[in-house]
Amino acid sequence: MKLANLIGSRFKERPADCVIDSHALMVRGGYMKNVGNGIYTEFPVLKRITAKIEAIIRQEMDAIDGQEVLFPVVLPADLWDESGRYESVGNELLRFTDRNHSRMVLAMTHEEAAVHLVREYAQSYTKYPFMIYQIQRKFRDEARPRAGMIRVREFTMKDAYSFHTSQADLEKYYDKCYHAYNRIFQRAGIPEVVTVASDSGMMGGSISHEYMLLTPVGEDSIVLCKECDYRANMEAAENKLVNEGKDSTQDLQCIETPDCKTIEDVCRFLNSDVETSCKAVVYQKNSDDTFVVAFVRGDYEVNETKLRNLVGEEIHPAEITEEDCLVAGYIGPYQIAEEAEYYLDITLKGIGSLVAGANKEGFHYTGLNLERDLEKAEYADISKIKEGGICPCCGKKAITIKRGIEVGNIFQLGTKYTKTMNMQYTDENGNLQHPIMGCYGIGVGRLAASICEVYHDDFGPVWPISIAPWEVHICCLRADDAETKAVADKLYQECMQAGIEVIYDDREGVRPGAMFSDADLLGVPVRVVVSPRNLKESCVEVVTRDKEIKEMVPVAEAFGFIKELKEKLYAKINESVETI
Amino acid sequence: MKLANLIGSRFKERPADCVIDSHALMVRGGYMKNVGNGIYTEFPVLKRITAKIEAIIRQEMDAIDGQEVLFPVVLPADLWDESGRYESVGNELLRFTDRNHSRMVLAMTHEEAAVHLVREYAQSYTKYPFMIYQIQRKFRDEARPRAGMIRVREFTMKDAYSFHTSQADLEKYYDKCYHAYNRIFQRAGIPEVVTVASDSGMMGGSISHEYMLLTPVGEDSIVLCKECDYRANMEAAENKLVNEGKDSTQDLQCIETPDCKTIEDVCRFLNSDVETSCKAVVYQKNSDDTFVVAFVRGDYEVNETKLRNLVGEEIHPAEITEEDCLVAGYIGPYQIAEEAEYYLDITLKGIGSLVAGANKEGFHYTGLNLERDLEKAEYADISKIKEGGICPCCGKKAITIKRGIEVGNIFQLGTKYTKTMNMQYTDENGNLQHPIMGCYGIGVGRLAASICEVYHDDFGPVWPISIAPWEVHICCLRADDAETKAVADKLYQECMQAGIEVIYDDREGVRPGAMFSDADLLGVPVRVVVSPRNLKESCVEVVTRDKEIKEMVPVAEAFGFIKELKEKLYAKINESVETI
Repeated sequence: MKLANLIGSRFKERPADCVIDSHALMVRGGYMKNVGNGIYTEFPVLKRITAKIEAIIRQEMDAIDGQEVLFPVVLPADLWDESGRYESVGNELLRFTDRNHSRMVLAMTHEEAAVHLVREYAQSYTKYPFMIYQIQRKFRDEARPRAGMIRVREFTMKDAYSFHTSQADLEKYYDKCYHAYNRIFQRAGIPEVVTVASDSGMMGGSISHEYMLLTPVGEDSIVLCKECDYRANMEAAENKLVNEGKDSTQDLQCIETPDCKTIEDVCRFLNSDVETSCKAVVYQKNSDDTFVVAFVRGDYEVNETKLRNLVGEEIHPAEITEEDCLVAGYIGPYQIAEEAEYYLDITLKGIGSLVAGANKEGFHYTGLNLERDLEKAEYADISKIKEGGICPCCGKKAITIKRGIEVGNIFQLGTKYTKTMNMQYTDENGNLQHPIMGCYGIGVGRLAASICEVYHDDFGPVWPISIAPWEVHICCLRADDAETKAVADKLYQECMQAGIEVIYDDREGVRPGAMFSDADLLGVPVRVVVSPRNLKESCVEVVTRDKEIKEMVPVAEAFGFIKELKEKLYAKINESVETI
Repeated sequence: MKLANLIGSRFKERPADCVIDSHALMVRGGYMKNVGNGIYTEFPVLKRITAKIEAIIRQEMDAIDGQEVLFPVVLPADLWDESGRYESVGNELLRFTDRNHSRMVLAMTHEEAAVHLVREYAQSYTKYPFMIYQIQRKFRDEARPRAGMIRVREFTMKDAYSFHTSQADLEKYYDKCYHAYNRIFQRAGIPEVVTVASDSGMMGGSISHEYMLLTPVGEDSIVLCKECDYRANMEAAENKLVNEGKDSTQDLQCIETPDCKTIEDVCRFLNSDVETSCKAVVYQKNSDDTFVVAFVRGDYEVNETKLRNLVGEEIHPAEITEEDCLVAGYIGPYQIAEEAEYYLDITLKGIGSLVAGANKEGFHYTGLNLERDLEKAEYADISKIKEGGICPCCGKKAITIKRGIEVGNIFQLGTKYTKTMNMQYTDENGNLQHPIMGCYGIGVGRLAASICEVYHDDFGPVWPISIAPWEVHICCLRADDAETKAVADKLYQECMQAGIEVIYDDREGVRPGAMFSDADLLGVPVRVVVSPRNLKESCVEVVTRDKEIKEMVPVAEAFGFIKELKEKLYAKINESVETI
């Protein structure tokens, strides 16, 4: 198509509200427009990209025997009552009532709908295994949408659900899907995506993996071992610290520590090491506001996901008032109020003499020995692992922490949904069983934005050819010059006839600089520049968006060169794709 | 794929809640499953059909220079405040608040979103004309969802919006789109769709057309002229009645008419002709409950759409209590309470002597002459035209009324949205102007169901090959017989290799009758039956779903025959497609 007709405006200024580059470039390039908080419309450029991503996903899902269905966006609350998630999921689940006062939800995920769809169909073991998937809009009422298409409220997602008669069969299929996901990301031009073990969160189930595209602006912390294959999301990473040389004991003493509200204040005041201090982080249960106190070594942070899993229900950071049983700033495990539930992190184990709050305004204990002084000292893993920490897999101190964007996830769900929603089949022996489920998600718009985030320069995205809005971008630098126009027109026609996706900039009166910055913003992999200057040498210039190729090509050979270059770029991507 | 793996159950019994055949067959065939009131999931069979319909629509929209975009399903209410529709549209617009108490709507149509998307882009006349479209879910909170996929609450729709700098340019594009729609329906196998003039309703604008698929179970009444090309939706059809030979006058008399609450009662009691009676139908304005009385000749019905347009706001059937100014059952235009607004229909014009309510419990007037007795007698067209009525186009008494399902609509919107939402461009003379819009819709699921409604027999749908879930259905009647299985397997492989979409039923232990009824329910156009009996004659049987072709084909020629038949079926459809 002609660039002059392309709907969407491109501009130079970085919008003030764009924190990350992909967001800024995609707004500047006319890819998307904000409609409301975390809600966007896709302009034609982005729609072309997401359509290509969807086609790749569809092919790979079909290749592992997936059958495409379409669930509704709006679901009756009854279904979510059945699974228990109508109550258990937080405000991200948008609940409303329709004109007849029926309770409804906007689906943020479709496990309930999947079980509902197949529970009559799959009543015999002979129907298993099978997988259904859809590509559909979802709504998740995020508290803080951010980073453009990376974290939005409404989004297009491919979600798949598999059903099995044994854990072994689920694992077999899970592995198949694991590789299908690898192929999807490889075909989309990001073979460097890594998988990490993750926490299953509100989805339930035990084993799950996230596909992470590493980038400094990623919102997830990823724990990697430099010595072995260990990879996990920070939320799921085990912290294996062993305290060494900190076992000497002292007497327990209560000391006045005026105006020392943080653990750093206290350590400075007492001139003691933060590594032998005990920090309190206080939460409350969502259900009844009971206090939950997490004690960690002063230099560690609480891993809220692990704590939540330990507590077994939703928690939130506490608000402590003067009437409460806890004394904010002076909370310690010794003689803590009985009403408060508390947990000791493994980073506190093996420390003979701790500094900790005295549960009394303005006082701390020194010489606290948990084993000696508490009735019962049990430790749990509720802290975040740190750079240089011990790898839970190989045991070496080789942990490094990187940031990444989650571009996909896969879960072994088990029977959480089939049990609560009473889905059963008759097995070979005539006994009723609950099928075992897996689920598998990829956010389409987020994937596009993530690729842009990792593949861009200062001037625009550098799209892999497999998902680029067009394959070839022809710039006719002087459309008012008959010869130049004729050569450019001919190339445009030849590309179209050969089925090459081409965008043609033949605008008159637009300066070359403006044309090139538009081309940079569209990020099309092959650019062809037709200009009077190049034609003096009977050539056109062919440049790849990543600058790796920049050649003057004789006009007569131009079309052949472009076609071959296009095929080379696809071949380069396909090289990285693992075989089925 | 193999039928044994196809997700979705097929069964014999017609579900009790299915009123129309397409709904019953699509439920029985495992096409869809009800999730909530007017909300369905599409099983793989239906998803395959809707995907094909979407592909046809996409091609035809692209062919008229449409650019695909994607609007959100959830929109902020602000946008609908701008157009005024947040207030003006009824309960079909689902309104809710998000976690931050922001007012939101579920989009039922996207005019507002379209203007929002392009109002910065299209500020110069040089950008015009252009068209954007999307294929996206919509939610319309229907009071009475019914007829399966025909009238649902959540649905997939293709909606397109065009923008122009003159009415003439809009009309030119409208005509282009009109023909693109024809091609879409022709390619989908329903060339018999007719267009009718329609009422623009809540969309605004003046000229609009509906595409109607004629069927006795259609929910729309369509007015057709047998003598000319006139076609209109009943809602929009002008009623041209001229009363003849009814002009003799009598004196006005108030007569006791005990227990005569309907116009038929009164005419029977007075032994007068219903054609000289005046019937009252009472509404109330939604805004303030003011009464609106429509008077029509006793044998005519009120056309609520025309009345609503005349009143200029939303109305609903009245509830009259004893305290009200109107006397239910005895309402007439003479001496009617001043608080009530009333309208006289053109069917009352030219009647010299009418029977009408006396606005007094138990009394009617006879001899009422509107011109003589009322201060001012003005007539408007607020009645429904009847079979045999006068064609408003050619003037002949040749009106016939049929029923149809609306499968698409196109509107000339004018500047309703661009004015209210302040979208402007600078014209060639530097003046600011509001662009003129058109909009164009097709419901994807509804189209699938409508085709099923018109093309089915007692046993299942008869899908046109262009939208059928598969092109060929192979039944292997004795999968336990090695030779039969080998022949069927080979055909299956050959079809797949040739890119023919094939579903293969090789289930063991399933009776031929059950296989055939499953095949009937799937409605695949070409059926191939491989059985020991046919193989005795070295043949397979090839049957089309519409029964037009039924042939024994030698095994050696079978694949070639199938391939050719498939191509013939496409050619037959393509014959009916008009050229661009």
